[in-house]
This record gives sequence, C-alpha cells and structure tokens, in this order.
Amino acid sequence: MDVAYINPFVVSTIETFTKMLNSEAKPGKIQLKNDESNTYDISGVIGLSGEAQGSICLSFPKLIALKVVSALVGADIKIIGPEVSDAIGEIANIIAGNAKQHLTQYNLSISLPKVIMGKDHKIASQRGIPTIIVPFESSLGNFAMEVSLKTP
Amino acid sequence: MDVAYINPFVVSTIETFTKMLNSEAKPGKIQLKNDESNTYDISGVIGLSGEAQGSICLSFPKLIALKVVSALVGADIKIIGPEVSDAIGEIANIIAGNAKQHLTQYNLSISLPKVIMGKDHKIASQRGIPTIIVPFESSLGNFAMEVSLKTP
Repeated sequence: MDVAYINPFVVSTIETFTKMLNSEAKPGKIQLKNDESNTYDISGVIGLSGEAQGSICLSFPKLIALKVVSALVGADIKIIGPEVSDAIGEIANIIAGNAKQHLTQYNLSISLPKVIMGKDHKIASQRGIPTIIVPFESSLGNFAMEVSLKTP
Repeated sequence: MDVAYINPFVVSTIETFTKMLNSEAKPGKIQLKNDESNTYDISGVIGLSGEAQGSICLSFPKLIALKVVSALVGADIKIIGPEVSDAIGEIANIIAGNAKQHLTQYNLSISLPKVIMGKDHKIASQRGIPTIIVPFESSLGNFAMEVSLKTP
C-alpha cells in the first residue's frame, strides 16, 4: 500500500496550525483505522474527488475544538455553536486546499466542509479503502487527522 | 433562493427505494435546516464538487437503517457494523450518482461516501449555504435526505 499521498495532508496541517493558530502541531505515528476506532466529538470533513476519491477529516475533542476556534477568531469561545462549526469547517477546508496543490497528479477537487458534532460519533469509510489516522499533539491539545483516498 | 436542484435528488431517492429496496418512499414537505436540527443515528454523506459544491446526506434512525440494509442485502441484519455502514454509504452513492446525471450543468463529481454513526449526531454546513431537508416516509420507516449546494 503506497500512502505517500498522506504527506501533503500532514505538512498542510502543521503549516495551518503554525500560520493560523500560532500553534506547533506534531504528528505522531500513523495508524490504519479499524472498525473499532471512535472519532472525537467534533469533526470537519471534506470530500475529495477527481482522479482519486476520498475524504479528509480533522477531529477534535470538544474542549480542544473550543481552544482551536478561540485561537482562530481571537476571542474566547466557550459554547459549541455555528461559530465553532464554521471555524472547524474552515480549518479543514484550508488544510485540504493546501494539500491538494501538492497532489496535482490526482486533479482533486474538494467539496464544501461538513462538520459532525456528537460525543464519540464514528465516521466510517467504505471497506477496502484504507483510512489512515495521524494523531497530532499541539499546544492547544491533541487531535486527529484522517485521510481515506482511493487512488487509481 | 432557487432550489430546483433538489428535485433530481428527490426523484433519485424515490427510484432507488423502489428499484433496490422494493419500498415506496414518499417525500414530505421540504424544510430549511436550522442550527437546532438534529440528524438521525446513521447518516451516509457524499461530497459534491464541480461547478457547484456541497453534499447530500441520507440519514436514518438506527432501526430503520437495519431494515433498509436488510432489504438491500436480502438477509436479516440486526447489528450495526461494517456491513451496515457500507450499505448505507452505497445507497447514498447511488442516489447521488443518479441525481448528478440530471444536473449536468454543474459538472458535478462525487466523493466516496462517509457514514456517520452516533445517536443524535449533528451535521452542520457552512453558514450562508442553505441545507434543505426532505423528510421521507417509506414502508421501511421514516428517514431524511439533506442537500446543501452552493450554486454559481
């Protein structure tokens, strides 16, 4: 399994956290997602289509989502509402958009973000298409990035 | 707000239920989704991109998801697992794929399905992009289709 396509998403996540949130994000060991894997409380999901198809998901525990959004908007956000879902969607959008530019061989286009909220929700891809989880540590807290991509 | 693009998704849902599940699905009154709207327990989401961008979501209560999947695979499925998420994703994929053929003006491409599982999860789109909910009644139970699309 060649998962070189994961790298632009990892780099883009690090860069986005540095530039937009003034936070250093360190990737941990990448893992293959299995059926038992739960996601965190709030997830921003972007669909990818073109020569390859799939999605990218940034998933945050509730408290970390609030810290990330507070850092983004420069105000102390304490309640999960439309402001939070918009901001989490926007961060996912920026990360996907930047990564796409380094994956021109797939001629990817990206859908608008959806933001999933719900304690311990699960997000499944189709069987046979690997989902790679990259855990991140950052000064704002831990979060996870997931990418599933069906390449030609 | 011109939401004529909703019709191919409604027709495709009805046809898919008839052909693949041998079930008559009747659309109810379409509604604009607001911040307070919860989704059902299991949702199949497909990203749409091209000249328009957005997503379609088919959302089912757990019991109805089991009935729908049982009807699709011709066996009595009683447990929420990979078989269910695959089947719900596949139904969303078929509905989006058929609808796309009637929306050629947008040159849509569709991402692979993601399936969200979690009691009363919420799925949010970006503010400013309307999400239209179409409630459906069917012989297998009630469910909902949501479409959000940013058209040029």
